[in-house]
Amino acid sequence: IELKDETAAVNMLQELYPADIAELFQELDLEEAIYLYMLMDGEKAADVLMELDEEDRRKLLKELPSELIAKRFIDFMETDDAVDLMRELDEDTQEEILSHIEDVEQAGDIVDLLKYDEDTAGGLMGTEMIVVNENWSMPKCLEEMRSQAEEMDEIYYVYVVDDDERLRGVLPLKKMITSPSVSKIKHVMKKDPIAVKDSDSIEEVAQTIEKYDLVALPVIDSIGRLVGRITIDDVMDEVREQHERDYQLASGISQDVETSDNVILQTAARLPWLLIGMIGGLGNSVLLGGFESSFAANPKMALFIPLIGGTGGNVGIQSSAIVVQGLANNSLKQGNVWKQIVKESAVSLINASIISLVVFIYNFFMLNNRAITASVSLSLFAVVMFASIFGTLVPMTLDRFKIDPALATGPFISITNDIIGMMIYMFITAALS
Amino acid sequence: IELKDETAAVNMLQELYPADIAELFQELDLEEAIYLYMLMDGEKAADVLMELDEEDRRKLLKELPSELIAKRFIDFMETDDAVDLMRELDEDTQEEILSHIEDVEQAGDIVDLLKYDEDTAGGLMGTEMIVVNENWSMPKCLEEMRSQAEEMDEIYYVYVVDDDERLRGVLPLKKMITSPSVSKIKHVMKKDPIAVKDSDSIEEVAQTIEKYDLVALPVIDSIGRLVGRITIDDVMDEVREQHERDYQLASGISQDVETSDNVILQTAARLPWLLIGMIGGLGNSVLLGGFESSFAANPKMALFIPLIGGTGGNVGIQSSAIVVQGLANNSLKQGNVWKQIVKESAVSLINASIISLVVFIYNFFMLNNRAITASVSLSLFAVVMFASIFGTLVPMTLDRFKIDPALATGPFISITNDIIGMMIYMFITAALS
Repeated sequence: IELKDETAAVNMLQELYPADIAELFQELDLEEAIYLYMLMDGEKAADVLMELDEEDRRKLLKELPSELIAKRFIDFMETDDAVDLMRELDEDTQEEILSHIEDVEQAGDIVDLLKYDEDTAGGLMGTEMIVVNENWSMPKCLEEMRSQAEEMDEIYYVYVVDDDERLRGVLPLKKMITSPSVSKIKHVMKKDPIAVKDSDSIEEVAQTIEKYDLVALPVIDSIGRLVGRITIDDVMDEVREQHERDYQLASGISQDVETSDNVILQTAARLPWLLIGMIGGLGNSVLLGGFESSFAANPKMALFIPLIGGTGGNVGIQSSAIVVQGLANNSLKQGNVWKQIVKESAVSLINASIISLVVFIYNFFMLNNRAITASVSLSLFAVVMFASIFGTLVPMTLDRFKIDPALATGPFISITNDIIGMMIYMFITAALS
Repeated sequence: IELKDETAAVNMLQELYPADIAELFQELDLEEAIYLYMLMDGEKAADVLMELDEEDRRKLLKELPSELIAKRFIDFMETDDAVDLMRELDEDTQEEILSHIEDVEQAGDIVDLLKYDEDTAGGLMGTEMIVVNENWSMPKCLEEMRSQAEEMDEIYYVYVVDDDERLRGVLPLKKMITSPSVSKIKHVMKKDPIAVKDSDSIEEVAQTIEKYDLVALPVIDSIGRLVGRITIDDVMDEVREQHERDYQLASGISQDVETSDNVILQTAARLPWLLIGMIGGLGNSVLLGGFESSFAANPKMALFIPLIGGTGGNVGIQSSAIVVQGLANNSLKQGNVWKQIVKESAVSLINASIISLVVFIYNFFMLNNRAITASVSLSLFAVVMFASIFGTLVPMTLDRFKIDPALATGPFISITNDIIGMMIYMFITAALS
């Protein structure tokens, strides 16, 4: 496609959307990519840059001088994207780039935003928004909007503040069309708008924006002054990442990996849980080794090890997944630990009874060994009850101590239940014989 | 709070957001809720209704006559919400309600929308949008928008069509403010807008809206005519549900359950996988039973059953999770089956070598039984290799046959690997002795 035909390339790039260009770039080598970058106008180049993978972006930025980064990219970015980009660079580069930004106001905003913790509303917000005073008339407001709107990609809401910069209301764009000549904005604005504090966590932001079906959310400081806005596309990215993290933790993958990552990265993400599982398995062999003479006397005992270990693991994963999901979507409150455990116990009582009864009937007719028939069913019952309560309690406890409850899902729960399941099985068998 | 003080209640309801009222309602009994419903104006009542849980909504609607549902709720709803609501009712009630809708155009739209498959863009879209002709001038356009905007909650984009109703462009609201007097809309609109077909799947819609960072998406039919629009809040709900479904499948929960669901519902969602696991465990006991004499002769064999079964399960879950996630976010393409298997094999070769080597060294010094030391490590190596390739192949095969690949995660993979792991272990041990 690329025979140095510059005008054709420029035309092609102009017609494509940034996300599509970013996809195209992943197939090019670095030099070609830089060449094409130089052909794009500033805003498009900036958009494409933000659509790239983090890794590709880092590679590209390393090749470019700070002045070029400031002039070709940062100048054309919204402040929230600029801050995201800066966070990926080291401090020296950050300062160098800041010194090259021509728009002093933008540089100041970026410096202010960099101070916020990355996991708070302040760290996610941008400062591009249309702000009007509650006492202005609609014509004055429209005029002001015209001058502010030039710098912005999209406008969804207009925020209304009082003379002290405190957020008083939101003006849906619809109102500008339906009531074009109102004398004071405050008569048509929506009062008491939904807003988040700059110190609120990203999860709270996501829950708020979803609960009220908004596409953007104003951010206020501790005394109610409007300091920024968060748009839904940034929130969606965060929500997706959170989901992927939970899913990966439940599957025993300790870092964010993609199918496109190389072999070393994938191994590094997967080996830790496998090693922990291995230690658990070796621990289990030591435990079972203490009963070696029982196995010699009664080899049938060994046949049910997979059944008991596997059932414990399955029950534990179910229980912990339900708790993690309940905590994530806020349907389960910290205070309800006991209620949840009682309910979980009721569910498990039914499941445990059915499973151990079926296994009892099967073994009664097929196994011809009363002692093991009894101990297997009793152990199954005990393991299911234990695994479900343990699987409920551990994530709720982690959550209480502000640790991500998703850590207590997947391999953690199945390895722990495997060991405790074997203990229960061995002790019940020993007690019955 | 509720001492039949009507005016106070009305005031309170007017100040609260629908989502908050819905939360309040979950704590009231049915009669109180109906009483409060009658106090709210139509639009708010409709919004609150859509914020309720599906179950609560069904209970409430059962108590109300169809005419009231049509007049108090459907009339005030956007068509996409109305269609969602109608889908929850049986056909007789649907027809009865449709006959009571006063706005014939709205009723017609609802009938049309009900024809689409629920899982397509057509099933998700609504028809409320502002549509203008490409040849209109901006003043004419604004005037038209004023009359159309009355019926709508929010406006994000204005869609531009030609004389044949075909979608030609999108007009960002910003343009209305920055270029108020342009003679033909087509000169300022954004051409070739991103759109989806009405037959596209919801996943495609979600990927499109996320990729291009949009807040609403126009829907076209097979010949390019604009038939509706999808807003990001509906897409977000769908994405969340998809994530929750994947997570639950990976955790062995077969239906959508919440911590707030009753004991019977939770048991029904969880028992199926536990029973399948139980059958797998019993199958394993039959398999191991064939080697009973080996256990009698060499009871140490039993000690490593949990290690080998557990490791196979852990590896399989990791592999299948990576594939499921790759397919979900489109980073893994169907055509790349072999490439993915080769890569997966490379990762597993490293993991398998490390784990079996560590176990070999441990057993060499601790176990004092050469035959078992060798067979455990060999088996571990074989099980890890098998589990990773199997965990990659099964979800990719399901996906090829248009079955949800997430079915092949969680308990399915761990139960299968448990059985095959035991087979490998037994046959290698038998072969070595």
